[in-house]
Amino acid sequence: MSAHQTRREQLAQRFAEAKIDALLVTSLKNIRYLTGFTGSSAFLIVEPDNATIVTDPRYDIQVRQQVDCRAKVSPKPLPTVEALLNKLAPRHLGIEAAHLTVHDYNRYRAALPKSTRLISTASLVETLRSIKSPEEIDVIRRSVDLNSQAFANTVARIKPGITEQDVAAEIDHQMRLLGAEGPAFETIVAAGPNTALPHARPSSKTLENNELLLIDMGSQVEGYASDMTRMLHLGEPDRRTKQLYRSVLDAQLAAIDAIRNNVRAAAVDRVARRTLATRQLDRFFTHSTGHGLGLDIHEMPRLGRTDKSVLRTGMAITVEPGVYVEAKGGIRIEDTVLVTDRGCQVLTPTSKELLVI
Amino acid sequence: MSAHQTRREQLAQRFAEAKIDALLVTSLKNIRYLTGFTGSSAFLIVEPDNATIVTDPRYDIQVRQQVDCRAKVSPKPLPTVEALLNKLAPRHLGIEAAHLTVHDYNRYRAALPKSTRLISTASLVETLRSIKSPEEIDVIRRSVDLNSQAFANTVARIKPGITEQDVAAEIDHQMRLLGAEGPAFETIVAAGPNTALPHARPSSKTLENNELLLIDMGSQVEGYASDMTRMLHLGEPDRRTKQLYRSVLDAQLAAIDAIRNNVRAAAVDRVARRTLATRQLDRFFTHSTGHGLGLDIHEMPRLGRTDKSVLRTGMAITVEPGVYVEAKGGIRIEDTVLVTDRGCQVLTPTSKELLVI
Repeated sequence: MSAHQTRREQLAQRFAEAKIDALLVTSLKNIRYLTGFTGSSAFLIVEPDNATIVTDPRYDIQVRQQVDCRAKVSPKPLPTVEALLNKLAPRHLGIEAAHLTVHDYNRYRAALPKSTRLISTASLVETLRSIKSPEEIDVIRRSVDLNSQAFANTVARIKPGITEQDVAAEIDHQMRLLGAEGPAFETIVAAGPNTALPHARPSSKTLENNELLLIDMGSQVEGYASDMTRMLHLGEPDRRTKQLYRSVLDAQLAAIDAIRNNVRAAAVDRVARRTLATRQLDRFFTHSTGHGLGLDIHEMPRLGRTDKSVLRTGMAITVEPGVYVEAKGGIRIEDTVLVTDRGCQVLTPTSKELLVI
Repeated sequence: MSAHQTRREQLAQRFAEAKIDALLVTSLKNIRYLTGFTGSSAFLIVEPDNATIVTDPRYDIQVRQQVDCRAKVSPKPLPTVEALLNKLAPRHLGIEAAHLTVHDYNRYRAALPKSTRLISTASLVETLRSIKSPEEIDVIRRSVDLNSQAFANTVARIKPGITEQDVAAEIDHQMRLLGAEGPAFETIVAAGPNTALPHARPSSKTLENNELLLIDMGSQVEGYASDMTRMLHLGEPDRRTKQLYRSVLDAQLAAIDAIRNNVRAAAVDRVARRTLATRQLDRFFTHSTGHGLGLDIHEMPRLGRTDKSVLRTGMAITVEPGVYVEAKGGIRIEDTVLVTDRGCQVLTPTSKELLVI
């Protein structure tokens, strides 16, 4: 049985609990996960023993090459899906409430028989996706390694006088040259006071001597994301900066140390926060400790203060505590990590020294 | 009055016809158009004499800098929006049905008073967006010019032996070096038989002598898209290729010639198709003649066979007929064009010769 077919069967095993007879999958990432299809437009109907993908003629050849379930190609995919569902007429049709617009919902409601109830479902496929198969872990490793190589290639070109935007453009270019589809998210390059903004966009600010440089970058390789943050310093850092860096690194290492199968995500977050609290820095840690990643850059689980999720062997997650002092600067250190039975494996090979250039 | 305030007033003037008292705007592009806010997460409530944007603390400083309406910053924006709507309690609240998920709809429905009816609206803001202001046209011009410059810089480096992916990476890099935010869509570089796929993705195929090369590229500058397709030939093209190129160019020029204020979009499409029909090529023209562009790469109007829209002065559109012969090859020529009272202005400055390299 193909990996995709196995995933569809695992999904169908959850139908009873979700009280549905079939699921209309409208998230393209979920469709890719369940079928291997990588086009930009598709619908998937999953029944207990059957699955049908519908796409448009742009993907006529591609869908037949990529997919091992029934495929329909139609210049008007939505009416084709409606016709298929009408014929199927399930009593309880699951929809992905987070991936279906009200507009499309209204269309389906009008097109389907009254006997079919539309049931909102949440995270049915996303929960499966959170545990990675060995094949997926291999791809994530390639994404992580490529990302670190792109970082190394770029670092050699960083010097005072170039802009944040120059560095970001070079990073994205290096990823592409190394074979990535592109960045997995908008690359963050922030220098000096800009490091205090956790989601800074690269600006025309010039890099200057004696300032911090934060680089948060991820690559997309065969659809899978990596994610890493590293800190650089132009010129020798002062004692205070070194101390701050050491505190964040301690928090990151402590969090990594707390990760293993069956540990609660919130417990890992708490370890990072407590480590920072011993140095009165916890109030500057304004986001959560990490998140799952895979076909999406942010997916289940989330490692935040109030998250209910439990870490499981095979989850790929980030660990990224940070401290941000407004108008002064910020420090974040982030790795991509694989949860294992007895602990975790840090996939990111890049050194975690504060890099002085 | 600011441009954004004017737009919100124009929008509110359409409330009566849409039978709504207020509109909840959930499309980020529409929010940018109505307020100037460029962050990645926001909600906007538009009332006849008032507007309130809600975003999260990441954008605390930014939203105050960019926006001239009331702004609320909340770590949990969705509950804050619900509370605001509850207080406002409009009898008929418009929602953007194409930009709201069933999940969020269900949340609003549960949170709002029973006396508030949720009314699905379509294209209220998008219709306003289809007519560009002089300021928007200036930005689109900059986007178009930058795009053509990135093309020129890349062409100098194209030679047999490099791959489609190499060319695409170079194009995207040139855009960034010239100051674009990035490509407005995934750059298409297709060589030889791959030119027959209208939406080919750049592959590892090597460019070879005596083949066609199709480049379809657009830049994003200050949020606004440009879009251009040009054809190159590695080595001297044969007579048949030259003829085919000439036919597509004739269709493109005829379509451009048909554009002016008050002309139906479908009529322009028909002109392109008829020109190709005189050479028995119309059956190879498998997509529509063009589309509006602006904050989105595809926006209103669409220039297809069955489209009802009428072209208006101030619309920015593409004109891009093409012919595609499976397993052989395809040719497309595309400009970005501005509709005027008496005709149109071709914004794209790049020559439309078949470029032999």
